Amino acid sequence: MASAPVILHASLSCCIAAILTMLVMVTVTPDLSIALADQNFANQRVELISEEEKMRIGGGSSSCLLWLTDEEKKVNRFILEEKGKMIEDARTNGTSFAPAINFMTSRRDMESTNLFKVIQKMPKGGALHLHKTALTSLDWVVRNVTYRPNLFMCVGNDLFVKLHFYDTAPSDPECTWTLMSDHRNNLSASETTEFDLSLRNNLTLVSLEPDEDYPDINAVWERFEKYFGMIGDLISYRPVFKDYMREALRQFLADGVQHLEIRGSLPKLYELNGTVHPREWSLRHAYRPVFREFEENNPDFIGAKLIVTTFRGKPPAAIMSFIQEAVELYKNNSDLVVGVDLVGQEDTFHPLIDFKDALLYPSTLDPPVHLPYYFHAGETVWLETDTDFNLVDAVLLNTTRIGHGYALHNHPLLLKKVKEHGIAIEVSPISNQVLKLVEDLRNHPASSLIADNLPVVISSDDPAVWDALPLSHDFYVTFLALTGKDAGLATLKQLAINSIKYSAMDRREKAEAMRKWKRKWSQFIQTEAAKLDR
Amino acid sequence: MASAPVILHASLSCCIAAILTMLVMVTVTPDLSIALADQNFANQRVELISEEEKMRIGGGSSSCLLWLTDEEKKVNRFILEEKGKMIEDARTNGTSFAPAINFMTSRRDMESTNLFKVIQKMPKGGALHLHKTALTSLDWVVRNVTYRPNLFMCVGNDLFVKLHFYDTAPSDPECTWTLMSDHRNNLSASETTEFDLSLRNNLTLVSLEPDEDYPDINAVWERFEKYFGMIGDLISYRPVFKDYMREALRQFLADGVQHLEIRGSLPKLYELNGTVHPREWSLRHAYRPVFREFEENNPDFIGAKLIVTTFRGKPPAAIMSFIQEAVELYKNNSDLVVGVDLVGQEDTFHPLIDFKDALLYPSTLDPPVHLPYYFHAGETVWLETDTDFNLVDAVLLNTTRIGHGYALHNHPLLLKKVKEHGIAIEVSPISNQVLKLVEDLRNHPASSLIADNLPVVISSDDPAVWDALPLSHDFYVTFLALTGKDAGLATLKQLAINSIKYSAMDRREKAEAMRKWKRKWSQFIQTEAAKLDR
Repeated sequence: MASAPVILHASLSCCIAAILTMLVMVTVTPDLSIALADQNFANQRVELISEEEKMRIGGGSSSCLLWLTDEEKKVNRFILEEKGKMIEDARTNGTSFAPAINFMTSRRDMESTNLFKVIQKMPKGGALHLHKTALTSLDWVVRNVTYRPNLFMCVGNDLFVKLHFYDTAPSDPECTWTLMSDHRNNLSASETTEFDLSLRNNLTLVSLEPDEDYPDINAVWERFEKYFGMIGDLISYRPVFKDYMREALRQFLADGVQHLEIRGSLPKLYELNGTVHPREWSLRHAYRPVFREFEENNPDFIGAKLIVTTFRGKPPAAIMSFIQEAVELYKNNSDLVVGVDLVGQEDTFHPLIDFKDALLYPSTLDPPVHLPYYFHAGETVWLETDTDFNLVDAVLLNTTRIGHGYALHNHPLLLKKVKEHGIAIEVSPISNQVLKLVEDLRNHPASSLIADNLPVVISSDDPAVWDALPLSHDFYVTFLALTGKDAGLATLKQLAINSIKYSAMDRREKAEAMRKWKRKWSQFIQTEAAKLDR
Repeated sequence: MASAPVILHASLSCCIAAILTMLVMVTVTPDLSIALADQNFANQRVELISEEEKMRIGGGSSSCLLWLTDEEKKVNRFILEEKGKMIEDARTNGTSFAPAINFMTSRRDMESTNLFKVIQKMPKGGALHLHKTALTSLDWVVRNVTYRPNLFMCVGNDLFVKLHFYDTAPSDPECTWTLMSDHRNNLSASETTEFDLSLRNNLTLVSLEPDEDYPDINAVWERFEKYFGMIGDLISYRPVFKDYMREALRQFLADGVQHLEIRGSLPKLYELNGTVHPREWSLRHAYRPVFREFEENNPDFIGAKLIVTTFRGKPPAAIMSFIQEAVELYKNNSDLVVGVDLVGQEDTFHPLIDFKDALLYPSTLDPPVHLPYYFHAGETVWLETDTDFNLVDAVLLNTTRIGHGYALHNHPLLLKKVKEHGIAIEVSPISNQVLKLVEDLRNHPASSLIADNLPVVISSDDPAVWDALPLSHDFYVTFLALTGKDAGLATLKQLAINSIKYSAMDRREKAEAMRKWKRKWSQFIQTEAAKLDR
């Protein structure tokens, strides 16, 4: 047989095959033969497409949770219709497609769609890849933090602002510090508005011409690091830090995120009188009380965990000390501190292999200590370079999850291991776009991971730096550009479930988390379905 | 055990494991333990990386041909060094990286490198995805074809030139036809140079500002189709057509391509007196004699085959006639016509499913006829749309190879089937970039296919339209951006071998082809190795 299909499935089409055989034994006229070949082809096509649909995240092969209720089906139909319209309009008429365009210039277009409004309301589970000083919106920072008493500012030679709380102006030969309130008092109302805007622009990475302002990955990373320099001092003031964290939790919960796993060094919080608290102090006096209080006041909230990090630009000896301290820290605070990671641009600083002695250290203790790793790895487009091999080292070092894993699709063996061992890949599509790994998110490699049900979770990395909502924009672009036209509510639901399944919570916490998520999910479905009935 | 590696390989490290066990039974001091963990980690790392290296195209698991000779090793070292330098320079210092930039503006940069010069000389086997009127350089077309007598031109309302050979000027109320030689006779030498350049610019897709001239995929396709409109009339003049084909073969062979599989409709060649030959005439009087003569005069040349195509914008009934005619054509010319395909922008014209009756027709004949298919499929970034499902239909219709298959990586089941059945994927990276599927070729999805030894062949689609060499530029960007930093000569060699293995040649032809390719390969290695000794 020649042009006949190569793929023969046993199930549905067996009776047709039997009839076909009988007919071939008589003599088949071409017309009847075409009809039968057609039917056979149609069956195989439906089967092949549906088999692949079952294979993807939300394909439903794994969990009865993905059988949709009637109300869910209604919401599903609506979002698939909206998604389909946008895709087909762009594909055939060439209308612009937001996920193909840098987020800095496409954000408003996304927000105006009906689909976005639904996704925004959706309970998304947890956000597992976040950096502690990039959580809370800059609007809040400018409007709230910079209006507090005792804030001083000066403008550096690089034309970026420095912000710090002092009781009196510091003597600084290199920069003249002014009391922010004094500065604002000299401005008219419109000048104040303008000043606040310029302050915001000084902090944010957002540009109306991102391609010109950030011609390459190093340029955008340089600017990105500036942000962290500016925000760090501002929010390390003890009362501000606590409010910043509290506001972060509030904004995430409002965006449908009930659980956060936050990467960051433990900050040395300072007081107005110059006192600087030791790092661990922040656990007892800032993180823990803020998280606990927020949990108590918000029954929908699941919780927050910390992944303690340090800068990957440090020398190996410093990483050894960091790991040694982390072993103790983890031992004493394992309900809150769930593991460690290294941060900073992977392509330009140390790869994991440079720190192997430090990273192997916990396993060489007697008895061995399990310090969970959550390594950034493979946040690169450079195959078989040090950065790419971070993926190999992360897996060999028994990482619990992989941060980004942008280059993972080029590693057939690692893909298998990651799937077998349930090592989740924390995909942050907008971050990858803004930080110039990929322009058009339809080319984001995680589409193939989602299609093959790899353990993917969607996160947002540093949403405040580029004015993204806590998780909605990342879910939106994932849904539109990283999943197929026919992937609907079940895929979104599974992504939310994944974020609990692959979280750092223990079994008991996860059960409680699922309960809280399901309750919110039911409310969401009820509300959305009711809207559609109107 | 905690942070210890999850992956334990049996082979190399067993004795170390035994020693480790013994030592653990005594009491291990942390320092010694670190040393042993280190050694164990180092072994596993080497093994994992080398296992993945073996899995890729050229990984050597399949063929003893990939064991490199000493001379090959020398060339391998040189190209890996050049590749490594360029990659590391770009990665860490941010120097520009040609495959990340639109080919129209990065071509010159590529050509200036030492690596390009080696790849240009390399025998690359066959080019299996080509379109017949986009083969021969526009320099040759302008310099040779447009200087022939009896060529008339006129400029249409769209400001694009029309070119046709006539014995006398046609009466055309819409366009004034001028004899090209008359026009040139009125020009000074410098004006002639300028005119020839403008003629070339009118034909080529090349732009110095591709992003501005071609803002989206539809814009670039519109311009692309203009080219085919212009060139078609010009080269369908019988003597020109034969020379165009002859020159194509010459240019491809000079670029290290010994075999061509050319897609195209059979052209209705015309004579000066207005005679228009029927389509099949071109086989007997143009293709066959030109190919035969070139083969006889060039012992290195393997041959050329035709994949007969028609436009996918036609209605189903027209495709049925096309397939019915193709069945006969194939039956009578199977040494030259090896199968069929449909052409035109996949996203905007009919998907394969619309033609299923026609495409199933040969298999319903009694006895069934095997008409090989070489379908363009999945040349898209739109998942689960009609274009994407062309991949499903192509496989179900038993396609021999897949043209482009850009979206294939998102189909886990199809990937398996394609690998099992040896359905080669014809990857044309520069075409995908120029036609705006992907900007930065480091994000081209075929990197993951190459990493997993899918049956990939590299081709160039329409090199003349964007001033690419027949295959060198596509091999160059594939090598730099679609394979890892450590993938060297063996990968290039396997890609060349793949192009013979997955060609439409029969077993005997393939054996002869391998003999010719190997002879050229040995010469190439000798010459390059000798250069390196100097």
